[in-house]
Order: sequence, then C-alpha cells, then structure tokens
Amino acid sequence: MKILLLYFEPFGSDSCNSGAELASLLSDECGGAELIKRQLPVSFRRAFAQAAGHIDCERPDMIVCLGQAGGRASINPERIAVNMAKSSTPDNDGYVAAGERLVAGAPDAYFTNVAVEEMAAELRAAGYPCFVSNSAGTFVCNSLFYNLRHHYPTIPVAFVHIPLTPAQAAARTSTTPSMASTVAAGALTLALTRLAQD
Amino acid sequence: MKILLLYFEPFGSDSCNSGAELASLLSDECGGAELIKRQLPVSFRRAFAQAAGHIDCERPDMIVCLGQAGGRASINPERIAVNMAKSSTPDNDGYVAAGERLVAGAPDAYFTNVAVEEMAAELRAAGYPCFVSNSAGTFVCNSLFYNLRHHYPTIPVAFVHIPLTPAQAAARTSTTPSMASTVAAGALTLALTRLAQD
Amino acid sequence: MKILLLYFEPFGSDSCNSGAELASLLSDECGGAELIKRQLPVSFRRAFAQAAGHIDCERPDMIVCLGQAGGRASINPERIAVNMAKSSTPDNDGYVAAGERLVAGAPDAYFTNVAVEEMAAELRAAGYPCFVSNSAGTFVCNSLFYNLRHHYPTIPVAFVHIPLTPAQAAARTSTTPSMASTVAAGALTLALTRLAQD
Amino acid sequence: MKILLLYFEPFGSDSCNSGAELASLLSDECGGAELIKRQLPVSFRRAFAQAAGHIDCERPDMIVCLGQAGGRASINPERIAVNMAKSSTPDNDGYVAAGERLVAGAPDAYFTNVAVEEMAAELRAAGYPCFVSNSAGTFVCNSLFYNLRHHYPTIPVAFVHIPLTPAQAAARTSTTPSMASTVAAGALTLALTRLAQD
Repeated sequence: MKILLLYFEPFGSDSCNSGAELASLLSDECGGAELIKRQLPVSFRRAFAQAAGHIDCERPDMIVCLGQAGGRASINPERIAVNMAKSSTPDNDGYVAAGERLVAGAPDAYFTNVAVEEMAAELRAAGYPCFVSNSAGTFVCNSLFYNLRHHYPTIPVAFVHIPLTPAQAAARTSTTPSMASTVAAGALTLALTRLAQD
Repeated sequence: MKILLLYFEPFGSDSCNSGAELASLLSDECGGAELIKRQLPVSFRRAFAQAAGHIDCERPDMIVCLGQAGGRASINPERIAVNMAKSSTPDNDGYVAAGERLVAGAPDAYFTNVAVEEMAAELRAAGYPCFVSNSAGTFVCNSLFYNLRHHYPTIPVAFVHIPLTPAQAAARTSTTPSMASTVAAGALTLALTRLAQD
Repeated sequence: MKILLLYFEPFGSDSCNSGAELASLLSDECGGAELIKRQLPVSFRRAFAQAAGHIDCERPDMIVCLGQAGGRASINPERIAVNMAKSSTPDNDGYVAAGERLVAGAPDAYFTNVAVEEMAAELRAAGYPCFVSNSAGTFVCNSLFYNLRHHYPTIPVAFVHIPLTPAQAAARTSTTPSMASTVAAGALTLALTRLAQD
Repeated sequence: MKILLLYFEPFGSDSCNSGAELASLLSDECGGAELIKRQLPVSFRRAFAQAAGHIDCERPDMIVCLGQAGGRASINPERIAVNMAKSSTPDNDGYVAAGERLVAGAPDAYFTNVAVEEMAAELRAAGYPCFVSNSAGTFVCNSLFYNLRHHYPTIPVAFVHIPLTPAQAAARTSTTPSMASTVAAGALTLALTRLAQD
C-alpha cells in the first residue's frame, strides 16, 4: 500500500510549518505502507496543481494531508471540505480570496471518505488529544482538501490539522496552544498504521 | 548547590499530575546542582507542612515548585503569591476554602524572589513557550507558594505552573491545551541550570 | 413579504433560550416584512417536522432561524449545513445522535442561499459583532438548517447562532461570553430589514 | 455619601473606552450616594496624579475605578493590586514599563478593601456575569489601583474591569467577547447602590 503524505511550506513570516516538521519525523515505511512525502506551496493557485502532479506520478492508494492550524490545541482530522475560497490574509503568492467557488458548478462540500471519528477515538484511547473538526476553514488547506476530494473521488483523502510547534508558540502569546512534533508524529504514526490496515 | 523540587500528587479524578510526570523526567543532577524531588499532597492543610519537613531536613539553597494548571497553554512561572485560600472544588482532603487568609496578620502577597522574567525570556529564546503569570490562583498551589515565601523568606522560591499532559487533554475537549512532559522537562532543565548558576 | 422566524425552546437545564429571548424582542413587522415567529423543540426528530408544518401553513418568502450557541462571543450567520447528526449530549427527547446522515442519499452539505457575508459586514459596520461561521455543528440546529435547505431549496434560509444571554453566562464561568438580547435584537432587526429589501 | 468614580480616556487607536461609556450611563445619584465622575489619562505618570487631585478636592467616602479589559467576557472586580509596572505596549504617553516597582519600599501588593466576593455574588444572583479576578495586570489600571490603595489606605477602593463594548468587538474578531454598556451600567448601578449602603 502506498500513502501520499502532503504538507505545506512555512506560511507568512514563520520559518517552519508544524505539518512539515511532523512529516520529517515520520518513517518512510509506516505500518506496512510506503509513505511518499511531498511538500506543497501555501498557494491557492499552485498547491493542488502540484499535488495532482504527485498523484498522477505516484498513483497512491490513499492521501493524507497535514495542515498547520494556529490557535488549535489538538490534532484535528477534518470532517468536510467546502467549495469556497475566502481569506483575510494573503497566501504565499500574495493572493487574497474573496469568497469565490473553488470549482464552478461542483457540490457545496464533500465529507472526507476516511473514517475519521474512529481514527480520532483510537488516538484518544492511546493518549493523543485528537478530535474531529467540522471546519477546515476557507484558506489554502481547505482548497487542497476540496480539490482532492472533487478530482480524485475514489482515493481516500484525510486532512489533518496540527497545532503550532512549541517554538512557534514561544514567539506568540501565553495562551497560544502548541504540540510537540514528536507527540504529533506518534499520533500520526498510529493513525497511518491503522489506515494502512483498512 | 541543592535545589528542592516540589510537585503534587494527582488531583481529583486524574490518575497523574503533569508536574509529577515532568519531575520524574528530570535528572537528579541538573546544571551542577543536586536536585531533591519530593511529592506533596493536594491539601491546603498538609502540603506546606510536608514541604516544611523536607526543607528542615534537606536545607536546600533554592526551592522550585511545579503545579499542574488545567487550561493553560504555556509554562508559567508565577510572579506573586497571595494570602488567601478560596476554592470552588474540594482539595484531595475534601476541603473547600471559603476565602480565608492563609496566615493571619501577614502581608497580602509576596512577589517571587527569583528572576522569573529573565528565566521566561531565556526559555522563549530557546523555543519553549514560557510566560510569567500574574496569578497562581487561590487553591493549594498558591497556598504552598505563599507559605514558602512567608516562612522561608531568605530561600529563593520559584513556582512554575505546567499545562496538562497530552494524555490528560485527550480525556477532555478539543480546545484543552497540553504540553508533552518531555518538552516541559527540557524547559525546566534549562531553567534549573540557569538558576543553579545564579 | 413574509419572513418565518424559527427559534428554539430552552435546552437542557436552562430556563431560557437566547434565540427565543431575542425573538420576543422583535416587532411583528420588520422593515416592511411581516414576521411570523414560531418556537421549535430541541429535538432531532421533531424540530424540522414542526418547522415544515409552519412553512406549509404560512408559505413564507424567507426563513430565518435563531440558534443558541454557548461559548460563542458574536452573532454568527452560518455558511453551511451538513448532512450529519452527531452529538455528545442528548437532545430534549433524550436522543444522542451517533453520526448518521440526516437525509440518506442527499448531498453532504448545502451552503446558505442568503448573502451572509454582506449581512455580517453591514452589521459590523453598524457596530454589531457579527461574523460568518463555517460550522453550525452537528446538533439539532444544524439538523434543522440542513433539512430546510434540502426540502425547501427555493426558499432563502439563514441560520444565525446567538451567544448566551448575560443571565445565562452569570450562571456559568468568568470566561463565558454573552450578548444582551437587546443588542442581538438590534442586530437582527437591521439584518431582517436588509433581507426584506432584497 | 460621596463616591468618586474614576474611568479612563480611550486607549491606543480606540475611539472610545468601555469604562467611560459605562460611566456616562450612570446617574449622578446612585442608591442615595452622590456620584462624582472623573476621566483619567491612560498614563502611568499622570493617571494617579490626576486622581489624587480629585480625591483631595472632593474628599470622597469611597472610590470606584472602571477599567477596560479587552478579551474579558465578564465584569471583574479585582482582588489585588501589585507593586509593579510592566507593559508590552506603550501607554498613551508612549511609555513602556520595564517591570519596575510603582512605589519603592512599599508592600508587594494590596488586597482591595471592598467586599468584592459578596458584590460579585449579588450581581450574579441578579443575572449579571460578574466574577472576582485575581489579577488587574501590570499596566496603567493596576498602577492606579495600587497607588490608590497605598496612598489612601483608609478609603475603600474597588477596581472593576469591564469587557469591550459590542462596537469595539465588531472591529476585532469573531471570538472577542463584549458587553453592552447598558448591561454593565445596570450591574454597576446595583453594585454602587449596595456599596452606598455599607
């Protein structure tokens, strides 16, 4: 089994991305599955295009995306991707989305086709703070997730939001939550092992 | 140099205490200082009494207390201890404090006599989320801190609040912040090394 | 123009519902539109059924739903309704939803067909804290919203989540946000006036 | 009985101050007490100096201060004032405090000499979200509070932090809590009436 693991470059003024840092800690073989890791730009225009290139080249059995989510305290597998691009801050290309549809004429939203509730429950039972989220937002993370679900409907796609790293939180405020990349990597290893066996 | 490290038993229905878990990861020798670790009960009546016994027996050069702080996202050295006991939940002896003074006739509050702002800045520079807090609350943590500052005014006393562990947060909600004990232990090792050199 | 305003009975142990309290402050005529107010049970099984009865009886030009959202700090028009019922607490019938679809074979989600971003921007410009939300959750509020969008696709439907009232927050904690019903009613009057003119 | 009510001018880029807006809604006679209202600058150097001028001129029986507290969700009478000035943002004179003592050689802190727990309980019973806070911070609010307690120890001094107004929150984010000035004024009228009878 082959799993394509997608994550992002640093966003804005950050020098790292918590999803990328997590990815770097994962072994290339995970629970019997081969893990193909690819970094994407934080760009509405280019993220999915590059992802599609990797999919067409690697033909994975499953896709797992890691997104950095400042302000979140736990690992959040996303339930749903929505057909909208809207942002208050520019992406790394300087683009601010005004609320337009990602794919004209396509459905408003797609649920993930991975059993995220079961995954989250299993991770919590193993001591990892992991809870399904009902919104991946309307920024580049959601854009990638929606396009993957729309254009590759038969491939299982999980999108998992990850808190900031402790070092990122240290540069913010006393109430900014974080998660050590080693903890997040332990959780993802367990999740990938489980997914590899489904 | 001898540092007495005080931490607490699990509180209420929890099976662990994040401060105790952190303490178990610290080496008995830290930056050239000898570290004496002692666990205390979550009890208004007994915590300081037991601490006093350890102090009189060990005669430490410095005291560092670790308290678990559910809901906090960062490591929080406390600036001040207040002369009040007030709680909405019972301590592990079943005692609910009604707002009484801890020491009759004593000052309203004592600042810590450790350079916590410098400690926090150094830890942040090293990538640890660490921010000075202006309130240790009015529960058993503050009670221990106040009594130590009042009865041993010449010994440097730092009280450091620690977030929940990831396993504790996993049993709570998606917005409960946590910190890996390994991360907190890395931060405390750095802090203790610095304190040992002062 | 006729607007059907739906809101809920008190939930759980609360003696009031912030949406119902807001509704009671709205005039029956609002910006030239007739406002028909109807209260619904906090019940997965009965809320939409009763709403459908009111719709078939009143034949409104537009539907506005008010839901109470404990923990939210601002007025939140919802962007999207999802085809899922999942709850950790029972509804007022004692029913706990396990993650089942609301309508078998129906789309995963529907966007609102009301211009909520414009509405929110106009309310903010008038001094009301109002921000579009990307998730109405998976409890009875979302269930009503989804069923309305699915079964009455041609009627404009807005679902607006409202913070707790100050009196409700007074019975909770120091960090529980609230909004005076008079403030929320001012905001809704402006929103309804705007919607009546579209 | 004469109560001196102190509040602040707008801070930073805000065009209003929630404490000042509240004060403008209070009647000059409150529960039999005469209410003398005076606005102060958001200045470490000038706030207490001006307050002292008003006290020496008016000779009040009691002082109540209102401070704006962005991020707080409830009315917060403060328990304690601390002998420290430390800020990350400049006051309205452009001064950033580095952590110095407010009064050299003076106690670390003073409790309020007003029965704030009873006041808060009474306000909650009347439906107002009001909870005693354990920290007034280390900015100009705390500076005024500490100086009043230190230099006028026999005059009862209450310092009450007030959330932002809805209009202020509308210019911030969806999670910024606020409170209508009419609600806060109702709470303060009740509190002042109670204080006037003590």
